[in-house]
Amino acid sequence: MLSDIEIAQAAKMRPIDQIAGELGIDADYVEHYGRYKAKIALDFYDKVAGRPDGKLILVTAITPTPAGEGKSTTTVGLAQAIAKLGHKVAVALREPSLGPCMGVKGGAAGGGYSQVVPMEDINLHFTGDLHAVGSAHNLLAAIIDNHIHQGNALGIDPRRITWRRVVDMNDRALRSIVIGLGGKAHGVPREDGYDITVASEVMAILCLATDLDDLKERLARIIVGYSYDNKPVTVGMLKVQGAMAALLKDAIKPNLVQTLEHVPAFIHGGPFANIAHGCNSVMATRLALKTADYVVTEAGFGADLGAEKFFDIKCRYAGLNPEAAVVVATVRALKMHGGVARAALTAPDADAVRRGAANLEKHVENVRKFGVSAVVAVNIFPTDTPDELAAVVEVCDRIGVPVALSNVWAEGGQGGIELAEKVLAAANSGESRFTPLYPLDMPLADKVRVIAREIYGADDVAFTKEAAKTIADLEAMGYGRLPVCMAKTQYSFSDDPTLLGRPEGFTITVRQARVSAGAGFVVMLTGEIMTMPGLPKVPAAEKIDIDKSGRITGLF
Amino acid sequence: MLSDIEIAQAAKMRPIDQIAGELGIDADYVEHYGRYKAKIALDFYDKVAGRPDGKLILVTAITPTPAGEGKSTTTVGLAQAIAKLGHKVAVALREPSLGPCMGVKGGAAGGGYSQVVPMEDINLHFTGDLHAVGSAHNLLAAIIDNHIHQGNALGIDPRRITWRRVVDMNDRALRSIVIGLGGKAHGVPREDGYDITVASEVMAILCLATDLDDLKERLARIIVGYSYDNKPVTVGMLKVQGAMAALLKDAIKPNLVQTLEHVPAFIHGGPFANIAHGCNSVMATRLALKTADYVVTEAGFGADLGAEKFFDIKCRYAGLNPEAAVVVATVRALKMHGGVARAALTAPDADAVRRGAANLEKHVENVRKFGVSAVVAVNIFPTDTPDELAAVVEVCDRIGVPVALSNVWAEGGQGGIELAEKVLAAANSGESRFTPLYPLDMPLADKVRVIAREIYGADDVAFTKEAAKTIADLEAMGYGRLPVCMAKTQYSFSDDPTLLGRPEGFTITVRQARVSAGAGFVVMLTGEIMTMPGLPKVPAAEKIDIDKSGRITGLF
Repeated sequence: MLSDIEIAQAAKMRPIDQIAGELGIDADYVEHYGRYKAKIALDFYDKVAGRPDGKLILVTAITPTPAGEGKSTTTVGLAQAIAKLGHKVAVALREPSLGPCMGVKGGAAGGGYSQVVPMEDINLHFTGDLHAVGSAHNLLAAIIDNHIHQGNALGIDPRRITWRRVVDMNDRALRSIVIGLGGKAHGVPREDGYDITVASEVMAILCLATDLDDLKERLARIIVGYSYDNKPVTVGMLKVQGAMAALLKDAIKPNLVQTLEHVPAFIHGGPFANIAHGCNSVMATRLALKTADYVVTEAGFGADLGAEKFFDIKCRYAGLNPEAAVVVATVRALKMHGGVARAALTAPDADAVRRGAANLEKHVENVRKFGVSAVVAVNIFPTDTPDELAAVVEVCDRIGVPVALSNVWAEGGQGGIELAEKVLAAANSGESRFTPLYPLDMPLADKVRVIAREIYGADDVAFTKEAAKTIADLEAMGYGRLPVCMAKTQYSFSDDPTLLGRPEGFTITVRQARVSAGAGFVVMLTGEIMTMPGLPKVPAAEKIDIDKSGRITGLF
Repeated sequence: MLSDIEIAQAAKMRPIDQIAGELGIDADYVEHYGRYKAKIALDFYDKVAGRPDGKLILVTAITPTPAGEGKSTTTVGLAQAIAKLGHKVAVALREPSLGPCMGVKGGAAGGGYSQVVPMEDINLHFTGDLHAVGSAHNLLAAIIDNHIHQGNALGIDPRRITWRRVVDMNDRALRSIVIGLGGKAHGVPREDGYDITVASEVMAILCLATDLDDLKERLARIIVGYSYDNKPVTVGMLKVQGAMAALLKDAIKPNLVQTLEHVPAFIHGGPFANIAHGCNSVMATRLALKTADYVVTEAGFGADLGAEKFFDIKCRYAGLNPEAAVVVATVRALKMHGGVARAALTAPDADAVRRGAANLEKHVENVRKFGVSAVVAVNIFPTDTPDELAAVVEVCDRIGVPVALSNVWAEGGQGGIELAEKVLAAANSGESRFTPLYPLDMPLADKVRVIAREIYGADDVAFTKEAAKTIADLEAMGYGRLPVCMAKTQYSFSDDPTLLGRPEGFTITVRQARVSAGAGFVVMLTGEIMTMPGLPKVPAAEKIDIDKSGRITGLF
């Protein structure tokens, strides 16, 4: 069996001009990055802004398990299947982070015969967007420390700086550091730390900005810390929103690549799905909707986190109207939700599938709470038995949700025809009436309560004293009308990662709240969120190689 | 008067395919980065490797002063003048670092009507090479700390790690830091620090590598620190040369842009000129020599540092034969070398020019010691008086070196016609017989003595006890046959930056020695070398802005 990278390298890609041409994007607006990657000039959108939008289809998933669910693969495969049915379709995906590629083997551009290509480029530096985000982020960090060093006119309290530094690398030794050592000429000593670049608020902002002016305004609103007299200090006060935006001048332009079956793929922006909203950029989604009749996009983690934020944050801010949501499940993952240990997954167990399907059922219910039609995609594996697959279908029939088996990993678009037909039927039914879960004028704590009760199935929400105080402070500062961004474990509906399936009778505890004033949401932290991954004992980097001709091996 | 950025933005650039076409590079080998930037595929060089080389012309300068000498501007202007004379010419320059653009206003892509464009791109992210160097560098740093965290099989002594981290930003607070804090799960605490990316040995390696295999071999030889039992620990032992090379797969390809007058410009690689050799990449220079009849290139700082390293390190390693070297001087700088204070530079003073010309004379002598024909370019300023300019010409006549006034900043290539004619005469005279200053089998300390006496005019060299011990250790480890790379102040022939002109009777003190085993030289440090700049009280970043259409202002 060929590996993902071998399949990708064997692909015959089409010149990116041709892919753009199929979307009606003139060559004049296509900024090449090599032969198979491009950015689309911002003024192209202005030209087509008056056109009606295509139909937006979200791909989300059940609660993730170590068994995997294949959400990106399904996203790409579904789009390929829609193309096979003769429709003009595009995918809109997040761009992956480079750092994790050096840690544990595993790509972020789909898999098998449902991948986006050129995969090495997409997974490494791509068109430089993450580096630009990192530069803008770290410029601001340098400006803050320089401001303090040069006299600290704003009275920034070095103990209350919330703006850390970033690098696109898995580097645990940078999580907690002390900077500014070495004496008077070398800055002011203080505690600091690094996050991985995709955790930067700059990334979240880039993904929600609608143009360069909006980008600058959002950057200016970022709060970097607090002064000795307890006032928020913003980027606007430090006067570097212009320089930060200049560093992002190309990063803001949507990237265009293609799938293995030449479906246009906009891969642009990739914010964290816990401390941020976890969706690709608004600008890429909008552009895709203006140039294709169907746009298949994806949100991070399971539907409790990814879809909820996609709906309540991204769609609300950008005025998007999703017409259907695909919930991806696998037999293996449902078995884990049904209580089977990872090591025992190979043994057939249709009953465990039935038990675990409670998780799927809840996610389907949730999607419908936003007024969006749901379709279930069962991403099949060679080890799935007919009984197990029948068990999933039976559950879906019972709750009245369309379901299709999908074999896009092995067969590409051809393996997703039935799924595509059901998704198109849902998207074209006119039944979706998208509406966010909560109104913006609801108090912040109530917004959390609505999400916890309606989406997670929690009995109640507890707020630590610290969180309650911060929430009160934020409302007093005028941030009460922002949507909330839940930072919760992706492995459970609850805030306890060991509670699989559809847990009940639990309480969610909000331990900390934090405003991302530029992105425009209040992050509610329900536990320790790791924003800087580490490398494993034998990092993937040891296996990666490149030969004299430039061919990369060992990446995936 | 228009600013550099206004002149650059008003330029009508030609599509980069056309520029490449003028060099005979087929479109198949041109990898676009937008419309006006490209990388040239590595296999193009293989195709043309058998062709004879064009003639290589180095642009270097007198000892720099705050008055400026205009070396990059002269490089670009000279090439434009050679093109005006009907010849096929290219420039080969270093690519600038992003960090300093945010600090003090001032570009690194020439000036006035002798610039390379698109200048905003070249000065910001360009084609991502510096970010790739930073990623490869910081991957290695993460791998080192992870190795220690995961059991430290190689016995790396955390107190003797010489591989710091890098970022392309002026960030003084990162010069000295402590990492690995926060407890057992977050690495091993140790002292560390950041350098600016261009100071990375990875950059020096990229600029000396001849292909991907050579790059990997050089990366594998990097010494990252020493083990508890005092053995060097290399990248090869950590097994990540392949992953580092994969991260550099595009960075290794030469970049092609154009000057304001559409002369092809290879801008590729930019290592420090003190702790490294300070020249653009060997691969770009070689490619330029295969595609143009004349190649004008540049080295860092004054000729004592830049030209010496260009000759003794780059030309020696790459087998290049420079045919002429232009020494750039300005009346203003010569006056400073003649003892005039910066504030008094506007007052005419031909005698000071004559006194200061001793500095120019020594640099001309030095160039000739390498067997290379010298030409002096006087980069004129509107404030220069006829008497002052005549004084320079008079000195040049006395020492028998061709001299030309150059007005390329204001007039572009037209302002450098006389210079071009004299440079072409020198390059075509057949008189140059390039030879390095010292043989590689000379002991390391003697190599330093030869450079100090012959090039700097020092009486002697003192080695601190520490430096002497390191040199002995390095020779014992087998590094005695490497060339040396002098890290000395650029502001004086001596190691005292206040000694202008042509100082005599001084001793150079080598305080530290350090091997860059991958790049292939032993760095001799004669004082504190700043490898991480800081930001000024009012950083340029506060003035930089971008409008809705993407036009950048305030960058220069």
